[in-house]
Amino acid sequence: MQRTFIGDLGKKIGEKVLINGWVSVRRDQGKMVFVDVRDMSGTVQGVVLPLSAAIGAAKEVTVESAVALEGVVNKRPEKNVVQRQNGDIELQIESIEIMSKAQVAPFDIATELHLDTYLDHLPLMLHTERTRNIFKMQSTILGAYRSSLRNQGFTEFMAPALVGADAEGGGAVFKLDYYNEYKAYLAVSPQFYKQIMVGAFERSCTIAKVFRAEKSATTRHLSEITQMDFEMGFIENEREPMRVLEQTIRDTVREVVGAHQDIFDYFKTATPLIPAEIPILTLQEAQQILGVPEESDLAPEDERNICGWAKEHKQSDFVFITRFPTAKRAFYTYEDPSEAPLSRGFDLLFRGLEINSGAQRIHDHDMLVARIKERGMDPQKYAYYLQAFKYGMPPHGGSSTGLERFTARMLEIQNVKEATAFPRDMTRIDSRLAEENDAA
Amino acid sequence: MQRTFIGDLGKKIGEKVLINGWVSVRRDQGKMVFVDVRDMSGTVQGVVLPLSAAIGAAKEVTVESAVALEGVVNKRPEKNVVQRQNGDIELQIESIEIMSKAQVAPFDIATELHLDTYLDHLPLMLHTERTRNIFKMQSTILGAYRSSLRNQGFTEFMAPALVGADAEGGGAVFKLDYYNEYKAYLAVSPQFYKQIMVGAFERSCTIAKVFRAEKSATTRHLSEITQMDFEMGFIENEREPMRVLEQTIRDTVREVVGAHQDIFDYFKTATPLIPAEIPILTLQEAQQILGVPEESDLAPEDERNICGWAKEHKQSDFVFITRFPTAKRAFYTYEDPSEAPLSRGFDLLFRGLEINSGAQRIHDHDMLVARIKERGMDPQKYAYYLQAFKYGMPPHGGSSTGLERFTARMLEIQNVKEATAFPRDMTRIDSRLAEENDAA
Repeated sequence: MQRTFIGDLGKKIGEKVLINGWVSVRRDQGKMVFVDVRDMSGTVQGVVLPLSAAIGAAKEVTVESAVALEGVVNKRPEKNVVQRQNGDIELQIESIEIMSKAQVAPFDIATELHLDTYLDHLPLMLHTERTRNIFKMQSTILGAYRSSLRNQGFTEFMAPALVGADAEGGGAVFKLDYYNEYKAYLAVSPQFYKQIMVGAFERSCTIAKVFRAEKSATTRHLSEITQMDFEMGFIENEREPMRVLEQTIRDTVREVVGAHQDIFDYFKTATPLIPAEIPILTLQEAQQILGVPEESDLAPEDERNICGWAKEHKQSDFVFITRFPTAKRAFYTYEDPSEAPLSRGFDLLFRGLEINSGAQRIHDHDMLVARIKERGMDPQKYAYYLQAFKYGMPPHGGSSTGLERFTARMLEIQNVKEATAFPRDMTRIDSRLAEENDAA
Repeated sequence: MQRTFIGDLGKKIGEKVLINGWVSVRRDQGKMVFVDVRDMSGTVQGVVLPLSAAIGAAKEVTVESAVALEGVVNKRPEKNVVQRQNGDIELQIESIEIMSKAQVAPFDIATELHLDTYLDHLPLMLHTERTRNIFKMQSTILGAYRSSLRNQGFTEFMAPALVGADAEGGGAVFKLDYYNEYKAYLAVSPQFYKQIMVGAFERSCTIAKVFRAEKSATTRHLSEITQMDFEMGFIENEREPMRVLEQTIRDTVREVVGAHQDIFDYFKTATPLIPAEIPILTLQEAQQILGVPEESDLAPEDERNICGWAKEHKQSDFVFITRFPTAKRAFYTYEDPSEAPLSRGFDLLFRGLEINSGAQRIHDHDMLVARIKERGMDPQKYAYYLQAFKYGMPPHGGSSTGLERFTARMLEIQNVKEATAFPRDMTRIDSRLAEENDAA
């Protein structure tokens, strides 16, 4: 028999069907067994009557087993109808094939777990509604963000992960054995490549993995991160990439809210507030509002507090911060002589956390070389990148959004590791590193 | 003045406009100067008359410089109209601002270059029509492939690049210093993760960077590759992922042909032949057709020849090869007892080259452990992955397409490195490694 997706069962009332899926719930009720079964299209309740040929398998099947079920789609009596998908039908099960019997989980997967226990068992936890919801939403964010950029004229390319030098000079970079005696490094950003691609496309974008060897064990840090980046040529100043970013965020929020009201409900989280214009504050304005000293950056606590202010006074879960001191930004950040020592960089904060950083960049070759030298770095190491500036690099700028941070704040999840499919950090690559070591 | 995109100039006849872009061509003709200028939306011809205030800058501007031009959009006289974008108009230029003056290229960029010279100067070469065309098409392939999978119900996730072990046991893997005394490796495939994600979504897909430390210097090999992967649960056999793949390829070809007839024309390449059904041959059938001995795989020459056969006899640029011996495929490939020693793996060839490999996979935990042991590997090292098989893994399968190979064969480019934005191989990361070393 041809498989029917569970989402299509409503069209098959009175018919015999075959469904495939996982057993989400099994309840013995006297001599009957009720099972909830889910596939990619939804969930349905099935019942196995005491005299059914399937009753033996129904008593044996465990939660999360993969099954093939045959049965008849019955309408429920009016009094049993519930307001959810397939809430008006019930599958009367006639046969159960257990394709893959699930072991009993080592703990109750419906309870809240210690993060380490949760991550140790992620292949199992991915079966749970909460975890599936996080990554369903992340998939939508990824698709919507990219589509918005494409609709705004950006051409997508694949930025490399392997690079030849510790390019941003930050130091927190992973080093690896390349061929023969050569060393290579993992990219900390697709920055240089998207700038080079401005020369091809004027507007370039990339979804890139970046790698940070920082010894940070906070709720905000990961060693492998997905960045959603764009770069655009022929700009007047940083306001143009800020407008593109705002449009992209707006399109993404619209699509996520349209597709996943159920997930916001599940997480008891409000949909993001995004007013007609996202508020823009200079760093100085933000510090004055908060009554904190004029430092060169915002502390994590300041980020949370200024977001609280923006929500209360501007009905916005997003706020731009601009005019950071040039000295605190990446070396390629543009500083207009009339605005020195402040740069044309910006950050976008969302619900208390920086999710994006961007800027107008230096486009003049000689100015860029001078800046590299000022920072104590060697222009020779940047010879490949600097070529782009010799052959007609227009004024340009762009920004970079962290997918995991954006996802985490969308659902108000406290630790960004929960919004990462397979998080890597100081202590873990899939399994805990210490365990790996014990096992080896 | 607000910038007008060059693609919109046709709507502004008689008006004064500001355009931004790069000088593609400059021709001095007596006391006049003609310039072709391009931006992301297209190209227009401009003319600077002898008495124009812009004549000084027009004589000075170099090819590939980034410029801002003001001028009036004039209709061309009927006899000068040509059949191309903006072929009926001309911009009478009144001012030229050189935003970024391009140096004169170290060679004639319009001629055919040695591949190494070309790659050494990629940031410059990305300005050329040929190179821009390759990556415009690649962006469309990437978007279309992904959209087709999403439309077929696949949920996208970001597979990790950092892994804890040389997971496929192939050996050609890059090793790196992780934190403290720990080593990590770069993924050779997103295979395990997309299988784990079947447990969450039933159908999962990912665009993932993979890394191969093979010491190969062929036209087909890269050290960093973009793979377009999917995996689907609840299949009968390998024919279901083959059908999904065929639909994805068909959708991608349709979109690419629809968007880029001009690029096929530029490369003097036919659009791909894809009949109502892509032909399927077993390895044995292919070898009989070719009259070659029954080996366990096809040699590169056989791949070219069987594609020649499929084109001549089946009007197809694509051909599936199935039923490879299990021993020659990855350890997780499913072998049905009735079909042993042949596996349920398949390859898809396109214009002489394997661009995709896929299979039904083993879904039974104990069978998978036995296979790992048979191959002389340690199941303990796969403990994290094996969890997925303990908690209800349905019969499943999928496949993986190499983006760069697919792009290269689409345009019949001989070397896959030309279809890679920033190719990495034994000799190169951006610059040639030997040079890097000299400079250091």
